[in-house]
Amino acid sequence: MRQSRLLLPTLREVPAEADSASHAWLLRAGYIRQLAAGVYTYLPLGRRVLRKLEQIVREEMDRAGAQELLLPALQPAELWRESGRYSRYGAELMRLNDRHGREFVLGPTHEEAITSLVKGEVHSYRKLPVSVYQIQTKFRDERRPRFGLLRGREFLMKDAYSFDADWAGLDVSYSLMYQAYRNIMERCQLDYRAVDADSGTIGGEGGSHEFIVFAGIGEDVVAACDHCDYAANIEKASSSHSVNTPPLPGGAALEKMHTPEVHTIEELTQFLQVPPEQLIKTLIYVLDGKQPVAVVVRGDHEVNELKVQAYVGAESIELADPVTVEQATGAPPGFAGPLGLKIPILLDRDVSTLREGIAGANERDYHLRHVSPARDIVTSHIGDFRNVVDGETCPNCQAGKLKLSRGIEVGHIFKLGTKYSQMLGASYLDRNGKQQDIIMGCYGIGISRLLSAVVEQHYDERGIVWPAALAPYRVHIIPVSVKDRQQIELAEQLYEQLARKGIEVLLDDREERPGIKFNDADLIGIPNRIIIGKTAEHGVIEFIKRGKAEVEKITVEEALSRFAPPLQ
Amino acid sequence: MRQSRLLLPTLREVPAEADSASHAWLLRAGYIRQLAAGVYTYLPLGRRVLRKLEQIVREEMDRAGAQELLLPALQPAELWRESGRYSRYGAELMRLNDRHGREFVLGPTHEEAITSLVKGEVHSYRKLPVSVYQIQTKFRDERRPRFGLLRGREFLMKDAYSFDADWAGLDVSYSLMYQAYRNIMERCQLDYRAVDADSGTIGGEGGSHEFIVFAGIGEDVVAACDHCDYAANIEKASSSHSVNTPPLPGGAALEKMHTPEVHTIEELTQFLQVPPEQLIKTLIYVLDGKQPVAVVVRGDHEVNELKVQAYVGAESIELADPVTVEQATGAPPGFAGPLGLKIPILLDRDVSTLREGIAGANERDYHLRHVSPARDIVTSHIGDFRNVVDGETCPNCQAGKLKLSRGIEVGHIFKLGTKYSQMLGASYLDRNGKQQDIIMGCYGIGISRLLSAVVEQHYDERGIVWPAALAPYRVHIIPVSVKDRQQIELAEQLYEQLARKGIEVLLDDREERPGIKFNDADLIGIPNRIIIGKTAEHGVIEFIKRGKAEVEKITVEEALSRFAPPLQ
Repeated sequence: MRQSRLLLPTLREVPAEADSASHAWLLRAGYIRQLAAGVYTYLPLGRRVLRKLEQIVREEMDRAGAQELLLPALQPAELWRESGRYSRYGAELMRLNDRHGREFVLGPTHEEAITSLVKGEVHSYRKLPVSVYQIQTKFRDERRPRFGLLRGREFLMKDAYSFDADWAGLDVSYSLMYQAYRNIMERCQLDYRAVDADSGTIGGEGGSHEFIVFAGIGEDVVAACDHCDYAANIEKASSSHSVNTPPLPGGAALEKMHTPEVHTIEELTQFLQVPPEQLIKTLIYVLDGKQPVAVVVRGDHEVNELKVQAYVGAESIELADPVTVEQATGAPPGFAGPLGLKIPILLDRDVSTLREGIAGANERDYHLRHVSPARDIVTSHIGDFRNVVDGETCPNCQAGKLKLSRGIEVGHIFKLGTKYSQMLGASYLDRNGKQQDIIMGCYGIGISRLLSAVVEQHYDERGIVWPAALAPYRVHIIPVSVKDRQQIELAEQLYEQLARKGIEVLLDDREERPGIKFNDADLIGIPNRIIIGKTAEHGVIEFIKRGKAEVEKITVEEALSRFAPPLQ
Repeated sequence: MRQSRLLLPTLREVPAEADSASHAWLLRAGYIRQLAAGVYTYLPLGRRVLRKLEQIVREEMDRAGAQELLLPALQPAELWRESGRYSRYGAELMRLNDRHGREFVLGPTHEEAITSLVKGEVHSYRKLPVSVYQIQTKFRDERRPRFGLLRGREFLMKDAYSFDADWAGLDVSYSLMYQAYRNIMERCQLDYRAVDADSGTIGGEGGSHEFIVFAGIGEDVVAACDHCDYAANIEKASSSHSVNTPPLPGGAALEKMHTPEVHTIEELTQFLQVPPEQLIKTLIYVLDGKQPVAVVVRGDHEVNELKVQAYVGAESIELADPVTVEQATGAPPGFAGPLGLKIPILLDRDVSTLREGIAGANERDYHLRHVSPARDIVTSHIGDFRNVVDGETCPNCQAGKLKLSRGIEVGHIFKLGTKYSQMLGASYLDRNGKQQDIIMGCYGIGISRLLSAVVEQHYDERGIVWPAALAPYRVHIIPVSVKDRQQIELAEQLYEQLARKGIEVLLDDREERPGIKFNDADLIGIPNRIIIGKTAEHGVIEFIKRGKAEVEKITVEEALSRFAPPLQ
């Protein structure tokens, strides 16, 4: 491709709208442009990278035995009512009416559509298992679209679905997909972890894994062991519970302290000059909109609401408002404590093993000291109700330490089980002629999100540094001066010869100053650069790898021999 | 691919919903399924063919120098208001609101989005010309979705746009696209014509061509010369006007005839026992919702409303209602005639050269005979206001005859000129620093429609007969009995060897009766079939081309040698 003809508008400045490194580079290097909040155009370079990602994903899906199909984006609202998600999905689901007033949604995901299809076409165990996938534009009306392609409202996704006769079959389908996802991550040269995850709103009975790409702007936090391969989303991660300090009942007697206007753990540590791990924090939650409970964790720990929710089996959980707190504890927020409460108390195991601590007195402006949980807190609900923290012991190997890192969720795979097949009535006849629910799995990867995630991990101070497998072009030829006949002739010759070998080459044939050309080349990030300058008359050119400092002086023949035609 | 694992549900009966041959075959052979009216799922076989079509289109676009990008489906309504199409597009435009109540449309086409992009990024003649294309799902809320993929509400389309500095540049861009479209049609083995066409609602000043694939169910009618390469949509086609019978004024005097309850041309020919070409038909139209006119054509001809509209320069044209007819003519519908009218009269040239004819008398139950147009009809508006008919002389070569055929419009290319660039403000600075409007072209081809159009031309009484370039698989291997060890082993061996050469093979490894397998194979339509039956023990197999009767007995080695690996 001749750069003079390419729609490749680079920007000198970081655009004001950019809120992450990948967003800024993709805008500046002319890969994407925004049309509306969270809605992007892929310019030619962006489209090329996207197609390479599509191809990698497609190859790995095919290798995993999944078949490509294409479901519609427009789906009758009726189908979503049947699954119960029409209302549950909330404002993220984009809705519209057709000219006859019939209600439709724009698919944010396709469990309903595929289950309904399979229900109509698969009726016997002889047609199972079957796995299908599609690469398709999805729509989700995010409340806060941001980070460019990372959290968009229209985005490209690969979603796959497996259908099995039994759970053992699902395990096989799931592990094929798990491996395919690992292959995709590795082919994209991503530093990532496959982490044990919560199944969230998609639901399902059999567990799930997220594929998290490490990045500072990531909205997910992962706890990963530095010794074994344990890794889990913090929503789900646990640590090995040390029982080295068994609870010691007795000790000093309870004592009330006046703590005027001291509401928070931070204020309390300052006021009393004690470390937060000696404090006992009591939070009042409301379950399913009606049942108040007290969750008690150490002052240096954070409540994990999903663990609480899973423990009690609630559909929803939210922090109580001040009125409810006062009703439950007899005091305004800031003075709740686990003693004498009439509501259920969920006690984190790390509080239960405290020798003693300081807790709220359930009375305005008072706390209690010498609280001995084993002696003073009356509850039968002791468990793991908190987030793990950096440096805790791995629950799997009991040897390594957990390290917390931020990351971007690019993929999520689920063992759905029979959630959708039951609701939509997708069943099959087994060998004995008995009707059975089909066992499902679903597997999603954000292809446009992957594009941004790769850039988050592959840039330097001058621009993008593409992994070879994803670069929009493989070679970038830059004649320093296109007015120099020897330079441009040599450049054209090399361009033709490489192109004839099937190699993707971009030729910067623009009449621009060398500084502008080199800056643009750095921004764009093509891995192999050939600079044709004054030494062209001796047949010598410069070869540079993007991201490396070394400049090699080589002959044209050498340059040609470095690039083998692409395989296949 | 193993057929036992493929999601390929074939149907024995023609489904009731099928309203065309391609629709019926694509449903029966398991290529597509309907999710809602005009909204289809592509099953694995359908997806494969669609991808082959995409690839052909992509290659031809690249060869024509266009760059692939991807614009969003979600577009702010504001953009459509700017171009004036938000209201003009009518009910076909799908509209929705986001969670904040902002209005969006789902792109049925992308002139607005691309013009707005180019406006922001291209400002100098040095960046022109540039041509871009995308392959994308489009949405149009058709009033009457039908014929399966032919007239759908969600469909796959390739749309391309060219941007030039001047009209000469547009001519070059346009002819590159014209040639690319011809290449696509030929690679799909379609019997088609590129026809001169009306620009319709997309508009534009510079003319357009439709690519029409001949098919009996087609909604377009093409007039094509049997001698030269003239071809035009009937909306635009004209014929050579013969002036062999100059108008002869005078003759017999006008005579009023009683024609009770005779309203139509058909009734009149029966009642008077005269051929329709001796009748003069007068239709009352209303232009732009207010101006009534009379259009006068021969009894055997049909008014061409677009020609009338173009002649008078009206935005809209519709047949007058009975009240307006009575106001304009003084008689109820059925008795209008061109004599004595107070409204403008548009006289078709073939009426103007009639020696005499029979016309309505503008009086209930009366007609006039011996009407001599040259003598009796007062108008200065004589022109071509009718559709051409089969067998007329070609207006181009004046030698051949025009033949009318029905066809499916699969592509349409337009010289838009400055219609959109003016409205949306896309301009550039020319060599002299002067601001100029960018000159645009747009070029669309329906990829999913192409799929159906190919099937309309490639089937026999047993199923689809794919052109080799589009078949979902190249070779179909059918062991007659999978329980026969020799047969299945030979089949597996051949399957592996062909697959290893990169050849797309489908192996029918199902435990089904031979009749079912052969019926399914005929339905699916893979071009090369290898049947492995009783002679397998001697290493002999049967080779059949789909659509041909001959059965060849060949050895396994011969079978292998017939299929070279794919190029590239």
